[in-house]
Amino acid sequence: MSDRSRRAGNGNGHRDPGIPVDAAFRVDFVHRLRFTRDALHPDNPTLRDVLTDPDPTSRRLVAVIDSGVARAWPDVAERVQDYFGGPDPAAALMAEPMVVTGGEAGKNDLSTFEAVTRLIHDSGICRHSYVLVIGGGAVLDVAGFAAATSHRGVRLLRLPTTTLAQGDAGIGVKNGINAFGKKNFLGSFAVPWAVINDEPFLTTLSDRDWRCGLSEAVKVALLKDAAFLDRIEARADALAARDEAAARPVIRRSAELHLQHIVSAGDPFELGGARPLDFGHWSAHKLEQLSNFEVPHGEAVATGVALDALYSAMIGRLAGTDAERVVRLLERLGFDLFHPQLRAPALFDGLEEFREHLGGTLAITLLDGIGRPYETDDIDREHMARAIDQLAAMAPSGR
Amino acid sequence: MSDRSRRAGNGNGHRDPGIPVDAAFRVDFVHRLRFTRDALHPDNPTLRDVLTDPDPTSRRLVAVIDSGVARAWPDVAERVQDYFGGPDPAAALMAEPMVVTGGEAGKNDLSTFEAVTRLIHDSGICRHSYVLVIGGGAVLDVAGFAAATSHRGVRLLRLPTTTLAQGDAGIGVKNGINAFGKKNFLGSFAVPWAVINDEPFLTTLSDRDWRCGLSEAVKVALLKDAAFLDRIEARADALAARDEAAARPVIRRSAELHLQHIVSAGDPFELGGARPLDFGHWSAHKLEQLSNFEVPHGEAVATGVALDALYSAMIGRLAGTDAERVVRLLERLGFDLFHPQLRAPALFDGLEEFREHLGGTLAITLLDGIGRPYETDDIDREHMARAIDQLAAMAPSGR
Repeated sequence: MSDRSRRAGNGNGHRDPGIPVDAAFRVDFVHRLRFTRDALHPDNPTLRDVLTDPDPTSRRLVAVIDSGVARAWPDVAERVQDYFGGPDPAAALMAEPMVVTGGEAGKNDLSTFEAVTRLIHDSGICRHSYVLVIGGGAVLDVAGFAAATSHRGVRLLRLPTTTLAQGDAGIGVKNGINAFGKKNFLGSFAVPWAVINDEPFLTTLSDRDWRCGLSEAVKVALLKDAAFLDRIEARADALAARDEAAARPVIRRSAELHLQHIVSAGDPFELGGARPLDFGHWSAHKLEQLSNFEVPHGEAVATGVALDALYSAMIGRLAGTDAERVVRLLERLGFDLFHPQLRAPALFDGLEEFREHLGGTLAITLLDGIGRPYETDDIDREHMARAIDQLAAMAPSGR
Repeated sequence: MSDRSRRAGNGNGHRDPGIPVDAAFRVDFVHRLRFTRDALHPDNPTLRDVLTDPDPTSRRLVAVIDSGVARAWPDVAERVQDYFGGPDPAAALMAEPMVVTGGEAGKNDLSTFEAVTRLIHDSGICRHSYVLVIGGGAVLDVAGFAAATSHRGVRLLRLPTTTLAQGDAGIGVKNGINAFGKKNFLGSFAVPWAVINDEPFLTTLSDRDWRCGLSEAVKVALLKDAAFLDRIEARADALAARDEAAARPVIRRSAELHLQHIVSAGDPFELGGARPLDFGHWSAHKLEQLSNFEVPHGEAVATGVALDALYSAMIGRLAGTDAERVVRLLERLGFDLFHPQLRAPALFDGLEEFREHLGGTLAITLLDGIGRPYETDDIDREHMARAIDQLAAMAPSGR
């Protein structure tokens, strides 16, 4: 206990002279990340092998499927039923797999959240049982929030199905839904039991969704691993052409760098001043909102990353050639980086909303070099407006 | 990583030969418990002293007040405004204190939860700011759930105002609301920033509410501290007569034992097989539900504790004289221990509901002696029915 706390017990008639109790404690977590192909094939042990708890209630499971996945893979519910329907299943499927609205729409009201909590209630599973969620980042978010709050936290098995979810969103320890017009206003920090990246799901994505995970890979490379940026650059054309062999190590490295940050940055639940890997995200979040979510997260991040790289150069921290390199790489990956909403005066409200969302004082990540981030609370709006002009001049749609 | 996980990467065409990633990490928490009088007096530094974070956004606060407290203490909102309204306030009060429905009713639908999340949204506070909640256990639960999920967790300052909340419920790391007819079906584990027990709030409780915290004190003494049970017994008449000086050390010891369990039992979020201090609670929860919550939690716990003490003796684990001692002590504290709902066949559904609520396999705590608990998954219904008969024969209302 601090001297300050100790003083609180002395001298004043309004206080009890009792000793304050400051109790520090730690909670242990394990995050299991797996990479596989055809996770739902009966012979694939990956999913089975993360369900090793001897507790019989840990051999029960319900499943939630993104409507977008169910459309692209019409047999996915059946495959889940087969996987958990054999003679000695890893877990008993306690209800038919539930298909829920994919995309941001499912996060905008309580209906999907309520449907998943009702599934957990109706099936009688407990906190030691599992909710298996197969889908993109939005469905992982809303079903994850339902799992995290039902019985104060049923175990969550994530099967991310998009490049964005496999390389970034599906790895994290967050969930959430939108409320009061604020993205992820309601949510929690919760460590998934396991995350299983199943590559073939990526093959049926639209070109737009395929591309969306690549901007987060570029972002994490810029923050953590300059050599990784070289490798993305070396295979940029193959990535844009959806070459699976080229994409595999990129998604994997992105996922691993995100996981590494969670487990090693010292404050995974962001209780103190720790920051997520959010380079370029202040404008990205605002751009999503200003476009009524017509600009998806991955595209907004590409724009935000390009903008903050140009701004970093504009204020003399990053070499101009490096900023240009970032913009050109994102363009080669297929992103059109300019959006007219960047000119909206409300864009700068994104700085305060970003601060409020993360908590504490404003901390914007910028670059001193590739792989060398720094934080600042000071964004010069005039320089930022010039960086926007520069991005407009460089991007096809801005010209 | 385990051998089992390692095998997952080998040999099968459906699998990627990649290395599984099992990442273990820890999260640090601090729980601050304070005992004081007149916490809202401008000269009392207790509340001010827990708000020491230099971050300016940590000097912002909203306040939620239990309607029961607002009735008994009509100036409480004004006192909050005065406390945070001086020339150099510890934090800026960002909105007028909000009065919300007290008691279990506020947990039965989403309206109070939504009102508190809207207060947090409207006032623009962030995750490093505070929600001060003044009230009984139910209001602490629902407002705590709102705080824990807004911005993924705004800091919670609890001022528990009942004996039950000051000695037990307000100390814990849980929150929740009821859903699908299940108590606390939705909720989370969340460590409060601070808990400040302000004694004078207890003076305006009804006799019934006053008594309710005493059963949890008896419960924790039976599980953890035989000498504490002696002390409760020695002052039982004074406690029943609402002698404040007699009650003070009892509430405090109860609070400290509950906190000690959270920080030292090794699994405060009950991720594994760890159990809360829930002796007598399987029947208590069911009794609350069977009576449509007309039997309040503290009374239900008194009955549940008496019943499981008698059962422990019935099966030969606890000395019969010790079981009788528990029953007589609870009666001297003013509890009428028999309720006709104990005869409902549905009472035994409480065992499965208790299991599902806690997760994992059934684990009922029983006694080998005073201060010597043990766990079992085996409850003999015939013996339990006889223990109910015995309780009926001993209690005035059962005769």
